[in-house]
Amino acid sequence: MEIARRIVIVGGVAGGMSAATRLRRLDETADIVVFERGHYVSFANCGLPYYVGGVITDRAALLLQTPESLASRFRLDVRVDHEVVSIDRAAHTVEVRNVRTGALTVERYDRLILAGGATTSHERASSSIPTHTLRTIDDVDHITGTLAATGSPASAVVIGGGFIGVEAVENLVRRGLDVTLVQRGPHVLRPLDVEMSSLVERELRAHGVDVRTNTTVVAAENGVATLSDGTVVAASIIIDASGVHPDTTIAAAAGLAIGSSGGVWVDAEQRTSDPAIYAVGDGAEKMDAVTTDADSGGILVTMAGLANRHGRAAADSIAGVPLPVEPALGTAIVGLFETTVAMVGWSERRLAAAGRAHRVIHTHPDSHATYYPGAEQMHIKLLVDPESDAILGAQIVGGAGVDKRIDVIATAMSGGITASGLSRLELAYAPQFGSAKDPINQLGYVADNLASGATRSIQWHELDTEREAGARLIDVRRPDEFAAGHIPGAVNVPLDELRGRLDELPVGSLIVHCQVGQRGHTAARLLGQHGFDVRNLDGGYATWLAGVSAFAAVPALA
Amino acid sequence: MEIARRIVIVGGVAGGMSAATRLRRLDETADIVVFERGHYVSFANCGLPYYVGGVITDRAALLLQTPESLASRFRLDVRVDHEVVSIDRAAHTVEVRNVRTGALTVERYDRLILAGGATTSHERASSSIPTHTLRTIDDVDHITGTLAATGSPASAVVIGGGFIGVEAVENLVRRGLDVTLVQRGPHVLRPLDVEMSSLVERELRAHGVDVRTNTTVVAAENGVATLSDGTVVAASIIIDASGVHPDTTIAAAAGLAIGSSGGVWVDAEQRTSDPAIYAVGDGAEKMDAVTTDADSGGILVTMAGLANRHGRAAADSIAGVPLPVEPALGTAIVGLFETTVAMVGWSERRLAAAGRAHRVIHTHPDSHATYYPGAEQMHIKLLVDPESDAILGAQIVGGAGVDKRIDVIATAMSGGITASGLSRLELAYAPQFGSAKDPINQLGYVADNLASGATRSIQWHELDTEREAGARLIDVRRPDEFAAGHIPGAVNVPLDELRGRLDELPVGSLIVHCQVGQRGHTAARLLGQHGFDVRNLDGGYATWLAGVSAFAAVPALA
Ligand SMILES: Cc1cc2nc3c(=O)[nH]c(=O)nc-3n(C[C@H](O)[C@H](O)[C@H](O)COP(=O)(O)OP(=O)(O)OC[C@H]3O[C@@H](n4cnc5c(N)ncnc54)[C@H](O)[C@@H]3O)c2cc1C
Ligand SMILES: Cc1cc2nc3c(=O)[nH]c(=O)nc-3n(C[C@H](O)[C@H](O)[C@H](O)COP(=O)(O)OP(=O)(O)OC[C@H]3O[C@@H](n4cnc5c(N)ncnc54)[C@H](O)[C@@H]3O)c2cc1C
Ligand SMILES: CC(C)(COP(=O)(O)OP(=O)(O)OC[C@H]1O[C@@H](n2cnc3c(N)ncnc32)[C@H](O)[C@@H]1OP(=O)(O)O)[C@@H](O)C(=O)NCCC(=O)NCCS
Ligand SMILES: CC(C)(COP(=O)(O)OP(=O)(O)OC[C@H]1O[C@@H](n2cnc3c(N)ncnc32)[C@H](O)[C@@H]1OP(=O)(O)O)[C@@H](O)C(=O)NCCC(=O)NCCS
Repeated sequence: MEIARRIVIVGGVAGGMSAATRLRRLDETADIVVFERGHYVSFANCGLPYYVGGVITDRAALLLQTPESLASRFRLDVRVDHEVVSIDRAAHTVEVRNVRTGALTVERYDRLILAGGATTSHERASSSIPTHTLRTIDDVDHITGTLAATGSPASAVVIGGGFIGVEAVENLVRRGLDVTLVQRGPHVLRPLDVEMSSLVERELRAHGVDVRTNTTVVAAENGVATLSDGTVVAASIIIDASGVHPDTTIAAAAGLAIGSSGGVWVDAEQRTSDPAIYAVGDGAEKMDAVTTDADSGGILVTMAGLANRHGRAAADSIAGVPLPVEPALGTAIVGLFETTVAMVGWSERRLAAAGRAHRVIHTHPDSHATYYPGAEQMHIKLLVDPESDAILGAQIVGGAGVDKRIDVIATAMSGGITASGLSRLELAYAPQFGSAKDPINQLGYVADNLASGATRSIQWHELDTEREAGARLIDVRRPDEFAAGHIPGAVNVPLDELRGRLDELPVGSLIVHCQVGQRGHTAARLLGQHGFDVRNLDGGYATWLAGVSAFAAVPALA
Repeated sequence: MEIARRIVIVGGVAGGMSAATRLRRLDETADIVVFERGHYVSFANCGLPYYVGGVITDRAALLLQTPESLASRFRLDVRVDHEVVSIDRAAHTVEVRNVRTGALTVERYDRLILAGGATTSHERASSSIPTHTLRTIDDVDHITGTLAATGSPASAVVIGGGFIGVEAVENLVRRGLDVTLVQRGPHVLRPLDVEMSSLVERELRAHGVDVRTNTTVVAAENGVATLSDGTVVAASIIIDASGVHPDTTIAAAAGLAIGSSGGVWVDAEQRTSDPAIYAVGDGAEKMDAVTTDADSGGILVTMAGLANRHGRAAADSIAGVPLPVEPALGTAIVGLFETTVAMVGWSERRLAAAGRAHRVIHTHPDSHATYYPGAEQMHIKLLVDPESDAILGAQIVGGAGVDKRIDVIATAMSGGITASGLSRLELAYAPQFGSAKDPINQLGYVADNLASGATRSIQWHELDTEREAGARLIDVRRPDEFAAGHIPGAVNVPLDELRGRLDELPVGSLIVHCQVGQRGHTAARLLGQHGFDVRNLDGGYATWLAGVSAFAAVPALA
């Protein structure tokens, strides 16, 4: 009998354990050993913030599997409290340290899977305020311990306004703390464009969160954090969610190729530059679905779905039934109080920085038919390739139904459906669930009108320049809407009166707008056919307001 | 100046009015006349049941537009209470009857759009019990009038267990009525396969609805309806939702081609056999997205989304900017108490009837990560082409998240994503919204395992035959699950003990099963590699139970 193949896996959570279980299903005889330096495997990282917030009350629910359950079901040899400290590629061995005893052993592998994830490694100023990261079971045990020991009123500073940072904020507010969110960059949730993140910041502030952008924490002592702008804020606890990077320590030391993104370079079967070694998850670089240029390098996407999927793909490759993985879209979602924020693909900022041509669409549809109670408005941004009409990215901020729409767009991107093609998707409609023309279909119609030239649009941030160049702004909303707030200098001619008041309109270039862009489209079509040079302000007053709010408090607009 | 083109539209609701508004946006000068024989246009048909149930309380909310609003915004000439009674194709005229005065006029058209929808036309036995259809504003005025005049306890009979029938049932229950649902066929919601509709019937019965299948109403007098099985049920009101067919009266009389489905035949620009005449909506036949064979004829899909979209497509064609429509998937959804039922494409029954090869997958996933509170189980069926791995159809019954999953599958079908390809969709994951391996991804994995031959499965309705042929059934669930209910004759060997108890297993062909199919898959992989001839019972005990429940009360299974 042949000696069983030995597969060693470094890291026993999302990517590592998915590889291990799939490998066992494909190969009943292999020796499969999983080393995990922490004390837990297969835990629900993504649930940790909600355990802090008390939404998840059962700590055991976070532990999806244990070494014992994995042994009995999958005959896996899972060793917690064991850290892999180095790889000897020539010898096909790893050196492993028992973190409890310090003992070192050497373990042979036929195939090695690196699934060590990401790590935080920035310097942390020493502080007398309890400061925790939020990444592990140990972390949440520490955080809940600190919170239990803290009297009220308690206050927290969360450093970092990324996904985990805002989840931490929400859950600390849920527990009744006063929370300050300190974000180094100009906006929270950096993958969003400013007019979208401004909606998120509004939601945070509406829940009493003190959002401090362009700011860092410079000192933290005696219950007070000092910020880089010189102000001080109270802090009984500090959560450091200031970002992570791929943990490539042992990979780099072993001379494996590291991609330009900073993650371990892998091919489409998740093989590193050493064909006996695989890498998956947060530590590995991904191919980018939006980049057409193969030379422009990979990206990092630190998402559990990809980690699990790529773990399975590595197992398939090792078992000899490879199925190449697909490039990553970076689909992501986060719930934040009553708001859901989701995105896929590239942002406008990233497209602009890459010098890549793009068309922008903003809409503000309702989650379902407005005649049925309970519809919630959402705000959608779609990025489109003007040449091919391909969807390059999307961002959605809203309530109900945001998750559905981002998934449909992600699926459309995977299927090569164009932006205009979204109009032809046959989505399920009953009034509780959507609209006869679903928000997704409407996006497609808007894209179709831009592609065909039926309507020309301008963006909120182009308005000033256009007006300086002489364009006049017509607000086609109802007088009551105009009275409630309007863009300074706009002239109000309601859409339903437009045909009768054409002679009142100024000559020269016109920009029309309504609340969300839809009536503006009808107005633009109408005026265009009457000989006017007209463009529609994309996304209407709502997008303009969100955009300008990102840069100023906009106290007295009207 | 050229004389303006005159476009006449028959029917002023979904398809007709969408054509009219789009046409105006494309052509500011055309004469656009809409004839509607009813008293209302642009109303929310789909909201009518919920107005009956009191969910929608504002009657005005059902009227999305009025002739006045359409005149001021779109310069449409909308004439309610006007029925088009005939078409003179040679003269390019229609004859129109004022339904209030009976006066007849003749109206010229350059292009004619037929958007008259569907109609009910079966004979209705005369009855002393108020009997109404549920299709128009007038209908709901009559129904709510009858209900207001009826003392309690009140009871209703709903005839027809289609979409509108079950919506009527739900809303009458909501109003406190005792409801009997009388369905001619063997199951409610006929587009579903039996093991799926059985879940719907269970939901109806759980809400106190008396579901009578294989039954018709033969008489209705004095507060009592007599059914074809000889029983009688109380009825203060009868809602007749027993089905509709395309209203092709004037089209057929004018000699336009009628498709094999019974709807007006149209090409991909919605043109009928007369190029000056278009047809859209419930009255028009659709191309079938699932049929590969162009000769096999069109289908009927009576859905608002398609009516609106095809209305716009007709307008585009008339305006000279045609964009061919895509074949129809028949995506549909209905809410029913706490349950949502959705479907797309073909059912197993339809595939079998057409003699088309297919592979079946059942899963029973949770709407989101189970460690986060509030997840709801759903039941998914996927139909797959075994040759091409193409998705042929899907059915989902469940709660939260059903609408999302059906839309993702419909989008995947439009994008040509294969069943296995569902595993590679990058869907948005946070624990409130889904799972790291979303139910959609898991469907893809199951499909992948069937396509690659990693697992072989059998269907619930094949079990008896297989066992008669000698196969032995192993239930790999936990003993407590087995004790709570199991398939008669199954032997219980829990998955986690399987490796240690291989010698206890019978020789010959084995069928393994668990609760939903997932542990069965792991068991099948395990046993297969140990030399057993093994297949997994697709969908596990849950699908088997739903299937057999469709045919019997299954009183004492264990
Ligand atoms: C608080 C939080 C919330 C999140 N929320 C979401 C979400 O909502 N949606 C989403 O898609 N993603 C979310 N993520 C991200 C997601 O959890 C990760 O993308 C995913 O877990 C990455 O999988 P991985 O296998 O690469 O790494 P991990 O799951 O992080 O596992 C890596 C493991 O390897 C171990 N390890 C590292 N080096 C060694 C070594 N040398 N020897 C032995 N063991 C080692 C580590 O201890 C760790 O346990 C969240 C993450 C966190 C922390
Ligand atoms: C109670 C109910 C609930 C529904 N729920 C849903 C749902 O949840 N989701 C969904 O997708 N679909 C639903 N539908 C179906 C959807 O409403 C139809 O598919 C859609 O309205 C069809 O559009 P249409 O333009 O073809 O016909 P309709 O919208 O029915 O309009 C046709 C109009 O033409 C008029 N007409 C007919 N003949 C003439 C003539 N000769 N002269 C003048 N006027 C004429 C009729 O009076 C009618 O008003 C529902 C339908 C009903 C009745
Ligand atoms: C749970 C974990 C151990 C993986 O276990 P797993 O058995 O591979 O994964 P799942 O439980 O999702 O099951 C997937 C398998 O069941 C199969 N399956 C799912 N539903 C099925 C059904 N109804 N019928 C048949 N098979 C089914 C799938 O095909 C797949 O098998 P395959 O890989 O052989 O194709 C690993 O993902 C993990 O440790 N997760 C926790 C950590 C984590 O992911 N954190 C981040 C998110 S919070
Ligand atoms: C409402 C009705 C009159 C159609 O009016 P409509 O103006 O064509 O349709 P909508 O209000 O959906 O608006 C769609 C238009 O707005 C545009 N639009 C939508 N959002 C936009 C935005 N944010 N920016 C710019 N344009 C936008 C779309 O592109 C489309 O214009 P186009 O067709 O020229 O491309 C017709 O559908 C109707 O009568 N419906 C009620 C009956 C019915 O549908 N019943 C069944 C369902 S209950």
